[in-house]
Amino acid sequence: MKELKERILRDGKNLGGGILKVDSFVNHQVDPLLMDACGREFARRFAGVRATKVLTAEISGIAPAVTTAIHLGLPVVYARKTKPITMPDQVYLTLAPSHTKGRMVELIVSPEYLANGERVLIIDDFLASGQTILGLARLAEAAGSKIVGIGALIEKIFEGGRAALQPLNVPIESLACITAMDDGKITFGDPS
Amino acid sequence: MKELKERILRDGKNLGGGILKVDSFVNHQVDPLLMDACGREFARRFAGVRATKVLTAEISGIAPAVTTAIHLGLPVVYARKTKPITMPDQVYLTLAPSHTKGRMVELIVSPEYLANGERVLIIDDFLASGQTILGLARLAEAAGSKIVGIGALIEKIFEGGRAALQPLNVPIESLACITAMDDGKITFGDPS
Repeated sequence: MKELKERILRDGKNLGGGILKVDSFVNHQVDPLLMDACGREFARRFAGVRATKVLTAEISGIAPAVTTAIHLGLPVVYARKTKPITMPDQVYLTLAPSHTKGRMVELIVSPEYLANGERVLIIDDFLASGQTILGLARLAEAAGSKIVGIGALIEKIFEGGRAALQPLNVPIESLACITAMDDGKITFGDPS
Repeated sequence: MKELKERILRDGKNLGGGILKVDSFVNHQVDPLLMDACGREFARRFAGVRATKVLTAEISGIAPAVTTAIHLGLPVVYARKTKPITMPDQVYLTLAPSHTKGRMVELIVSPEYLANGERVLIIDDFLASGQTILGLARLAEAAGSKIVGIGALIEKIFEGGRAALQPLNVPIESLACITAMDDGKITFGDPS
């Protein structure tokens, strides 16, 4: 998606070590009109998968998941990383390594909002190692739901996430696919 | 806002002790079309305050803040509760008591995205004791910004937040104002 790639080149910061800082429009400050355009684009690309629910992980996935869900007219569930007091005792819980936190984090979904037979579209901000998305897929499968698609705003193809997600056998769409981040540069390419 | 109040009566759960569970459409599962309608309503109510930025706190504030920001065409910043590796060492940080966590949490904003002279509209899911919103106001003031309005989806007027925020001397708007939650009931009323 041209608009997102241009914004990454203009405002994204390659901090080295494969870390891309997009805090000025995705992760801390959000450009809501860009996020809305990304949501519209995901809705267009996944129009055919007949999803019944959008699933993401707090925190940074919420904005793109909500705008995607607006354009698809579907509810969105965000997996919590801590169990709030309003959640029942019995939950779906899995562990996933957090890139930015350097440790395992919990991903928790209440059975109230992920039912047997749902068709789940996973949306997240980044597709890097794919471990968070695999965790979301495990939660959906535990609930008897079926993953029907995976969308990420930004893919870092060199971290191997796309390969890790291949066994799920669903369409994977990223709106900006980064093939290299060497020498402080950001290079886009084709995920395939 | 009629649509939100009806939804609270239909799907909200009074868990007792002043705890209102709205996990099926605000806090864990999000109804994006309702959230979009709430954002449009906030944008209408705050059309005259000439905000330059929307400010909220992760996690539950993000969805209504993003939809409000879409309708106002403004960037939104969400205060982080843990400092990500992409954030500079020097930040604005304050402590606020968390109702749902039962302890103090940090609210952190990078100086990169809250500048001197900004006109800040604070949007959050709940206005209860007002402590989170007061924390956000402290961050904005530390940055030399001016709070120009406060909006909450749901106000629990009996927890005193509106009174606590009066010294800020800005318009406070809630889309559903709950005056009592006794005997398992949910009673709406006028905030004034």
